[in-house]
Amino acid sequence: ANSLLANTGTTIFTVMSALAVRHQAINLGQGFPDTEGPADVVAAAAAALQDGRNQYPPLTGVPELRQAVAAANQRFYGLDIDADREVVVTSGATEAITASLMALIDPGDEVVLIEPLYDTYLPVVKLLGGVPKLVRLAPPEWELPRAELAAAFGPKTKAILLNSPMNPIGKVFSAEELGFIASLLEQHDAYAVCDEVYEHLVFDGLRHIPLMTLPGMRERCLRIGSAGKTFSLTGWKVGYITGPAALMGVVAKAHQNLTFTTAPNLQRAVALGLAKDDAYFAGLSADLQAQRDHLVTGLTAAGFKTLPSGGSYFVLADYAALDSDGDDAAFCMKLAERAGVVAIPLSAFYAGEKPRHHVRFAFCKQTHVLDEAITRLTRYF
Amino acid sequence: ANSLLANTGTTIFTVMSALAVRHQAINLGQGFPDTEGPADVVAAAAAALQDGRNQYPPLTGVPELRQAVAAANQRFYGLDIDADREVVVTSGATEAITASLMALIDPGDEVVLIEPLYDTYLPVVKLLGGVPKLVRLAPPEWELPRAELAAAFGPKTKAILLNSPMNPIGKVFSAEELGFIASLLEQHDAYAVCDEVYEHLVFDGLRHIPLMTLPGMRERCLRIGSAGKTFSLTGWKVGYITGPAALMGVVAKAHQNLTFTTAPNLQRAVALGLAKDDAYFAGLSADLQAQRDHLVTGLTAAGFKTLPSGGSYFVLADYAALDSDGDDAAFCMKLAERAGVVAIPLSAFYAGEKPRHHVRFAFCKQTHVLDEAITRLTRYF
Ligand SMILES: CSCCC(=O)C(=O)O
Ligand SMILES: CSCCC(=O)C(=O)O
Repeated sequence: ANSLLANTGTTIFTVMSALAVRHQAINLGQGFPDTEGPADVVAAAAAALQDGRNQYPPLTGVPELRQAVAAANQRFYGLDIDADREVVVTSGATEAITASLMALIDPGDEVVLIEPLYDTYLPVVKLLGGVPKLVRLAPPEWELPRAELAAAFGPKTKAILLNSPMNPIGKVFSAEELGFIASLLEQHDAYAVCDEVYEHLVFDGLRHIPLMTLPGMRERCLRIGSAGKTFSLTGWKVGYITGPAALMGVVAKAHQNLTFTTAPNLQRAVALGLAKDDAYFAGLSADLQAQRDHLVTGLTAAGFKTLPSGGSYFVLADYAALDSDGDDAAFCMKLAERAGVVAIPLSAFYAGEKPRHHVRFAFCKQTHVLDEAITRLTRYF
Repeated sequence: ANSLLANTGTTIFTVMSALAVRHQAINLGQGFPDTEGPADVVAAAAAALQDGRNQYPPLTGVPELRQAVAAANQRFYGLDIDADREVVVTSGATEAITASLMALIDPGDEVVLIEPLYDTYLPVVKLLGGVPKLVRLAPPEWELPRAELAAAFGPKTKAILLNSPMNPIGKVFSAEELGFIASLLEQHDAYAVCDEVYEHLVFDGLRHIPLMTLPGMRERCLRIGSAGKTFSLTGWKVGYITGPAALMGVVAKAHQNLTFTTAPNLQRAVALGLAKDDAYFAGLSADLQAQRDHLVTGLTAAGFKTLPSGGSYFVLADYAALDSDGDDAAFCMKLAERAGVVAIPLSAFYAGEKPRHHVRFAFCKQTHVLDEAITRLTRYF
């Protein structure tokens, strides 16, 4: 068997969700809402099954969805995207990330990755023969270490993989930080794979800025969005990549080798979703912001020290005041077994030296679920 | 951009489907039925959207579908499969093939491929750092060249990729041929990725035999099935892999990096489909056999010399008596433009020396569509 995969553990999300079931714990681990997405989008997916379009749609996606993705890029970010040549629909953002990396890198190319990182980034880069260059953000400030980042770029750099808003830390990259990254890309003639699945889940009046909107970046970015996250339907596995036509032709060929295409009824429903009015998008982030605040209040009362989260489904909490065990994985096991609440250890997002005493909680849950989690944590500590 | 993908042409299926649209030609190219799959399966997919299971299903698939896949393996082939540890549901058979190869091979490992081959096999092996060893079947007999096949195996062989029933030639491998392949696998301690997407589309009383059912092969095969092909719903992109638990754990990790999971409503509908009675499966192949016979009769009347097809959606035709141009791609262009019928050149399935004057027709089409194609071909020649 492939030695890299054989030596990789089961994904932390599956491990912790299984643990939640075993201990009948409240699952604030894996990031998915516990309510359904918009009823009209779901109904549209059901209706679309019934009108004779269940055979292969085009490789790059149904025209309706490609046009809706282009229109959303215009509406939210002023980006001019050619729906026919600059959009590829994928079977979820995970495929989108893998297809983008597959399209960009040749064996031996270097890829800059920022820790903490999502758990498919590193194995995919390695499986494609890429050479990862890790740069580390550290709690509690998560500042971009500009000198180290610059040093990670070199003559062999092909791409950076940038996640903003960033899982698991909730960091929304600022215009200044993005400008610095853009300057490195230009200087080194490199590209960015922009994992922006949480683009519409941003709080406190912060604004998500796609790296692609910066001067010179239109031709250097593959920008990834997620219907699962944007419509609270994480099981649908519909993602989309936007980028310059020349690169997107190669992305389409990667996609062809990964899944070829994606169920047309789900694609058509997502197209409808992307055309929703501003109130929908505002409501989505307002609701999540309220859930974040609710959980943060409870965690603070229970003795955790939470860190700021400007976007995503997640908030980090420092538990040093509650437990002296710096091993966050051990702490999470204890939390699941004894307190009946599942969180994800921050260390699961680091390949190198592990950070200590931080865990990630998902707040994309109903109020009564968050309340029960808070009650259990308060009772336990 | 990745040099292998950048230097690969757009897939022949997309090229020829676009050509069909441009010339308003009858599309007997890309393999998909032009009718819908079973109404109850489609209705089940619609209903399943409405009962609150639209968030991430388990990484390896919903329990209902894993159990249905295990049950189908028992029912059709007498195979004992553990639904929890030996099945992984994928976003289509294309992902299943890529995930299986990703799980098996390390860079430098050799993979035996049989020409003619489906158009993702070769790029995927190469993208994963595998070394392809091509063995060639040739018209009109498509006999397995045993000496060459044996010579393609060596100390570095990790796997063979075997497609039976075989696209594009409609070959259904015999027990003797499979036995020979099995002996090579044992001798070289190698594995098989068994692309059996056409397992239920077999004609003339022939029997599809999974390589996995042969002595010693239970632990050496990753067997791939396709809901798209089995239920005439090619757009759904639901596939499944069955294999020994130890390998399937690695397959699951590959799947995690490719798509993570697949829409639960489609999975649940497919589970229902797999439990259909024998009449459904018998009807599926009987209908396709009748369509094959109808097209073959027409092609023969138009002057083509068809080759036997024992399974799949496809029949090959030798056009040497009709046109002296041995370049089958040029012939297909002419056929689309002048006759108004799209077929796929057989040479598209060969990486090495191209075969001459053969084209592939898909017969998974309604009678009136086949009739119109036959009328056009007869008129043209
Ligand atoms: C695809 S499972 C992981 C979901 C997620 O993005 C997270 O929990 O970080
Ligand atoms: C995924 S498009 C190709 C469909 C097919 O299997 C074929 O036409 O050979």
